[in-house]
Amino acid sequence: MAQRKKVPSTVVRRLPKYYRHLSDLLKEDILRISSKELSQRMGITASQVRQDFNFFGGFGQQGYGYNVQHLFDKISSILGVNIRKKLIIVGAGNLGRALANYKNFKNRGFDLVGIFDVNKELVGQVIDGIPISHFNNIDRFLEENSVDIGILSVPYDETPAAAQKLADCGIRALWNFSTMDIRLPHDVAIENVHLSDSLMVLSYKLNHKLSGD
Amino acid sequence: MAQRKKVPSTVVRRLPKYYRHLSDLLKEDILRISSKELSQRMGITASQVRQDFNFFGGFGQQGYGYNVQHLFDKISSILGVNIRKKLIIVGAGNLGRALANYKNFKNRGFDLVGIFDVNKELVGQVIDGIPISHFNNIDRFLEENSVDIGILSVPYDETPAAAQKLADCGIRALWNFSTMDIRLPHDVAIENVHLSDSLMVLSYKLNHKLSGD
Repeated sequence: MAQRKKVPSTVVRRLPKYYRHLSDLLKEDILRISSKELSQRMGITASQVRQDFNFFGGFGQQGYGYNVQHLFDKISSILGVNIRKKLIIVGAGNLGRALANYKNFKNRGFDLVGIFDVNKELVGQVIDGIPISHFNNIDRFLEENSVDIGILSVPYDETPAAAQKLADCGIRALWNFSTMDIRLPHDVAIENVHLSDSLMVLSYKLNHKLSGD
Repeated sequence: MAQRKKVPSTVVRRLPKYYRHLSDLLKEDILRISSKELSQRMGITASQVRQDFNFFGGFGQQGYGYNVQHLFDKISSILGVNIRKKLIIVGAGNLGRALANYKNFKNRGFDLVGIFDVNKELVGQVIDGIPISHFNNIDRFLEENSVDIGILSVPYDETPAAAQKLADCGIRALWNFSTMDIRLPHDVAIENVHLSDSLMVLSYKLNHKLSGD
């Protein structure tokens, strides 16, 4: 798909929300939807929906509404979630284990293929069918297995070294749950997750007596 | 602070990012910053920064730049994180335990005061000084303790009942990590956390060979 200009980050961050709502529409056997109806479900304006879609060349006849399946397929393809991706988790503490057990990833097209830690007491344990391996063995694992995304759930101080190691081993995308932001000079896509941002937004809503989500 | 019009959700969601960057600036002993410098640190435009701040009446003389401490205090106050808030966690599985151990909340002004689960094997265990109590005792706990925010890390099917129970007991803000979105008819602020949204954005970056964050 030809993209004429850089898509703003705020638009990119709405794409998963479109994906989720379109996925729900498909489950409800709704075949067509207008920008107005879609916008109402998502709590944004119809004009916003049309503006967002224009970054990707529109997506169909507005008079008749959008074809839900077509729109879902297009957005899946733009997000790259139409092709299954392989994940590894580095750091098998509580958060790493919680992520390993998170069933939604598989539904979204992401398959966990390895879990790594440096703690010898954890190595050898099995989570959801995947054994925890020692992080020292990551080079060989990544030589033998094609992995798209590395999830980092390691302690704060271990973040830079773990990120660098994965980048050196050829991982091109890092999903970072450490509270330390990762910046790498390489050609590596990074999502630094800031859980407390969401908590602060909740605090804002509470502070301003805004109900709902 | 007088707010002239409803602040768009995209602006509200940038406030924690301002908060984090201003907090870093204070640690670096930087006293003043221009909208241009602040925007560059945050990866947005200077015009965006000024537009965002205008929703809250500006925040100081642009010619001299912003006073960092003043700006930080104002944004803390808007977010409501200048007043410490009390949290409870409902659901002490891996994710609940990971959240209970997440040190960043305390730094942001949130204090964990209780953890609840229905699993008798977990009840009585202590996480970071907080004992896990049975969820059946939540009424009495909330009668005796003032709690601002309930964190839900319960299984999918248990989400609606747990959310309703907390709302009935007077909790006015829910931070929901279940994959089921909560909607309540009450005056309750809700943040439904969609972890896989961030993973899909990472997939987008990987798909479009965008490096960095």
